[in-house]
Amino acid sequence: MFVGVIGGGRCSKKVTDLAEGVGRALAEHGATLVCGGLGGVMEAACKGASQSGGRTIGILPGNRAEDANAYVDIPIVTGMGEMRNVIIIKSVDAVIAIDGEYGTLSEIGHALARGIPVIGLDTWELSQRGKLKGSIILATDAKDAVEKALSAIGSQK
Amino acid sequence: MFVGVIGGGRCSKKVTDLAEGVGRALAEHGATLVCGGLGGVMEAACKGASQSGGRTIGILPGNRAEDANAYVDIPIVTGMGEMRNVIIIKSVDAVIAIDGEYGTLSEIGHALARGIPVIGLDTWELSQRGKLKGSIILATDAKDAVEKALSAIGSQK
Amino acid sequence: MFVGVIGGGRCSKKVTDLAEGVGRALAEHGATLVCGGLGGVMEAACKGASQSGGRTIGILPGNRAEDANAYVDIPIVTGMGEMRNVIIIKSVDAVIAIDGEYGTLSEIGHALARGIPVIGLDTWELSQRGKLKGSIILATDAKDAVEKALSAIGSQK
Amino acid sequence: MFVGVIGGGRCSKKVTDLAEGVGRALAEHGATLVCGGLGGVMEAACKGASQSGGRTIGILPGNRAEDANAYVDIPIVTGMGEMRNVIIIKSVDAVIAIDGEYGTLSEIGHALARGIPVIGLDTWELSQRGKLKGSIILATDAKDAVEKALSAIGSQK
Repeated sequence: MFVGVIGGGRCSKKVTDLAEGVGRALAEHGATLVCGGLGGVMEAACKGASQSGGRTIGILPGNRAEDANAYVDIPIVTGMGEMRNVIIIKSVDAVIAIDGEYGTLSEIGHALARGIPVIGLDTWELSQRGKLKGSIILATDAKDAVEKALSAIGSQK
Repeated sequence: MFVGVIGGGRCSKKVTDLAEGVGRALAEHGATLVCGGLGGVMEAACKGASQSGGRTIGILPGNRAEDANAYVDIPIVTGMGEMRNVIIIKSVDAVIAIDGEYGTLSEIGHALARGIPVIGLDTWELSQRGKLKGSIILATDAKDAVEKALSAIGSQK
Repeated sequence: MFVGVIGGGRCSKKVTDLAEGVGRALAEHGATLVCGGLGGVMEAACKGASQSGGRTIGILPGNRAEDANAYVDIPIVTGMGEMRNVIIIKSVDAVIAIDGEYGTLSEIGHALARGIPVIGLDTWELSQRGKLKGSIILATDAKDAVEKALSAIGSQK
Repeated sequence: MFVGVIGGGRCSKKVTDLAEGVGRALAEHGATLVCGGLGGVMEAACKGASQSGGRTIGILPGNRAEDANAYVDIPIVTGMGEMRNVIIIKSVDAVIAIDGEYGTLSEIGHALARGIPVIGLDTWELSQRGKLKGSIILATDAKDAVEKALSAIGSQK
């Protein structure tokens, strides 16, 4: 299973801890973490996963593999800036959004448009828009987020 | 001036009228319309612009210029699916979001991340997220949307 | 008709003159010039086209419309680096390659793979590879290149 | 080390054997294979690598992970068609081109433009273009190609 983790490139200590916990829980469940490969939420999640023996993929916006944080096993170098977010969303079975600003909102939009489960931890809340199916599944902590993601993937298959 | 118009590929009669009015008003102000080049909101806006003598650019997701609606003057063929939305956002001075589903939400996220004015007509409302600057500027009708877009561009320059 | 002009971002005086002539001839035939929007061959071709009343589109690799050369009417901002070359190739009916280095070789490969006419002016020569159809059509000067491009488009339609 | 393998989506038995040998030799040297993830040269190389215990990454052009050949460990789903070739080239330390048509020529152009070693097995030959540095390093068989790739990476670092 491939699970995306999205969130800002800078974040508070509290959000860092959340993201690290998400990475750890993903590794414990044997899921591969896919993220944007840089700092903040991405680095914390990769660190948690890596330290628990999990596999991490970083889809990088720039032109250098060296831009990846130290916990990325497999750097994919795109040189296409924030467009690379779409690749993250297309390559995963579910995505966990942690905190985040407008870039994260955009990724949530992509993920909901694609129809994969989106788990939210302390992130955007969306207004209801008419007949739209699917929305953010709220989670209370890191473990809960990962369990909800894996369970939503299971029920889709 | 280049102004983006974003919204769903299918839409109601009411939304079609809104979009056509936006296209018309953009043309009357001499602004070039940039959109995704397909049907629904995109086609209605292009039609309004084209019939008022305006210039229209369609950034197409597929591989064929023939996919463009009949009112696109300049088809740009990307073959990159919904990623092409990012090109729309990067190529304009402001964007008007009309109705729309998750794809439109994603584009709104990109536009706010980039810091250009986003005018909303009957579209998503966003929760406040902490310290984030910028948000959707609500408009009441097509003319109002275009005037707010052009005025916001003016005050940024 | 949309015709691409590809070539290096820096070039000699002789190549500059060739590119300017190509732009001029395209404008005189009413074709829209599509290029990468930057300097060298791109700027010279845009200058020639613009000064003869032609329309020019620049598909830019960076994130700023201001990066376009002064003769680009319509800057399309992609932020995706050299990948934007693929958009040029997909958006045109034929392409004229002038001089150029490895980036130009790559665009020639894309264009031949897509099956559009590729006219070469003082550029790469390709070895024959077995059963492959289509190859570079050699031209002797700017006028000849444009005439061969337009004639090849005509015979494809 | 990450090494790209490029070549056509369909190929002869002879080329299939070459590609499988390249995959096998990459795995034996502990290098990760990166390719376009589909059939032909890509599948044969992945098969060779996978059966020798190597790791394989497929950067897919379409929208479905299921499009990957059976020997891809890590499918990256881009939905951006042949543009995904640029991601392959940016993500590797060297590339081995086997046979191939115009798409492969385009990738060779990207790789030479980026300045990474390009090893050629029964593929395009390039005319000399003035002052250009770097060119295709010819190899005689699969083992030779992999050894030349790894040695060229070593001497670049």
